[in-house]
Amino acid sequence: MKSSIQALIFDVYGTLFDVYSVKEKCRDLYGDKGEEISIVWRQKQLQYSFLRQLMGQYEPFSKITRDALDYTLTKLELPYDEEKVETLLEAYRNLEAHPESAEILEQMRDKKIAVFSNGSRDMLEPLIKNSVLSELIDEIISVDDIKQYKPTPASYSYALKVLGVERHEVLFMSSNEWDIAGAKSFGFQTAWINRDGMPLDKLGMEPDSIYRDLTGILEWQ
Amino acid sequence: MKSSIQALIFDVYGTLFDVYSVKEKCRDLYGDKGEEISIVWRQKQLQYSFLRQLMGQYEPFSKITRDALDYTLTKLELPYDEEKVETLLEAYRNLEAHPESAEILEQMRDKKIAVFSNGSRDMLEPLIKNSVLSELIDEIISVDDIKQYKPTPASYSYALKVLGVERHEVLFMSSNEWDIAGAKSFGFQTAWINRDGMPLDKLGMEPDSIYRDLTGILEWQ
Repeated sequence: MKSSIQALIFDVYGTLFDVYSVKEKCRDLYGDKGEEISIVWRQKQLQYSFLRQLMGQYEPFSKITRDALDYTLTKLELPYDEEKVETLLEAYRNLEAHPESAEILEQMRDKKIAVFSNGSRDMLEPLIKNSVLSELIDEIISVDDIKQYKPTPASYSYALKVLGVERHEVLFMSSNEWDIAGAKSFGFQTAWINRDGMPLDKLGMEPDSIYRDLTGILEWQ
Repeated sequence: MKSSIQALIFDVYGTLFDVYSVKEKCRDLYGDKGEEISIVWRQKQLQYSFLRQLMGQYEPFSKITRDALDYTLTKLELPYDEEKVETLLEAYRNLEAHPESAEILEQMRDKKIAVFSNGSRDMLEPLIKNSVLSELIDEIISVDDIKQYKPTPASYSYALKVLGVERHEVLFMSSNEWDIAGAKSFGFQTAWINRDGMPLDKLGMEPDSIYRDLTGILEWQ
């Protein structure tokens, strides 16, 4: 199966890009509370995307990310104003690529290379265009084009349509295991980039491969 | 609008019944780790229900609850066997009703009274039939009948069909704000039973009423 791969699809946040600098910005502004802010913020950001999809009340990820931050700072009873919120949101548009990302993409250039994210284009495009990966990515695909968040089958189907390949010809990478479960359920080949050494979620779907960073995908060359 | 209410629909876990005894059982078996187990278990239980719905990979809540517990104990690196797991799962079938539940249901008996839960019947029926609320509930409605988890519109639509009323004639109660957002989005009147004094989630839906316990709903009499 490995030799049949025509396209590589990468998730963005945590997978190609390191979200560490979001945490750092939280610590810059809120000191000791920074860590807790970044954890609750991420949990709520994910939860709001899932819930809005389930309820049929889609809003773009930029709006959801702001709403999740707003909730987080309210819940933790921390003072905030528009300037603080903008500073924190801006961090999402200025992430560093993980150190191995560029070299791995370079080595896999004989395949189509796409990113596919729940992020809306106002978040994704500045991030990717200002990064070292800009020239290495053939397609930026956002769920916002069809307003269907991952992990719905419709979202992965859209990515497939943009790339014009068959589902078994895709290798899909994400550091989010729920995203891997959704992609596997849809019929992609999958590699879970398990950077934090987490246990496998119990969602009835196993990744085809599990790696600690993107280097492992070279065996799909 | 309050006078037009024909049916009361109650969520179960946390709303009519106190999930405290699940925590207590976690502490009985795992001491200091009990609190963390109960928090991670609940988060994963919810997340798995949302993700399976989004992926189109429905499994009953009893299975999801077991899978979430399995993940939790693995992640926290705690030893477990089938007996421990069964003891913890059994706690969900032996919850105490919140102290005000019976009296409030009694006072509202001129309306149809239903429970509507993501729980499957193997969890719900033993719980309710062995409780003080058994004689006060006209309908036990489970999403498992149609395999559509809350907060999808299809789930609330099913509850409506079972009760044979119009959506604006329903007052829906839950202690889970995501459930209130889904019910409100569908068109029910809603009362959020905010027992823990949490801030309002930013999901674009506001409850019609917010109460600290079920006593407040008497004003919908």
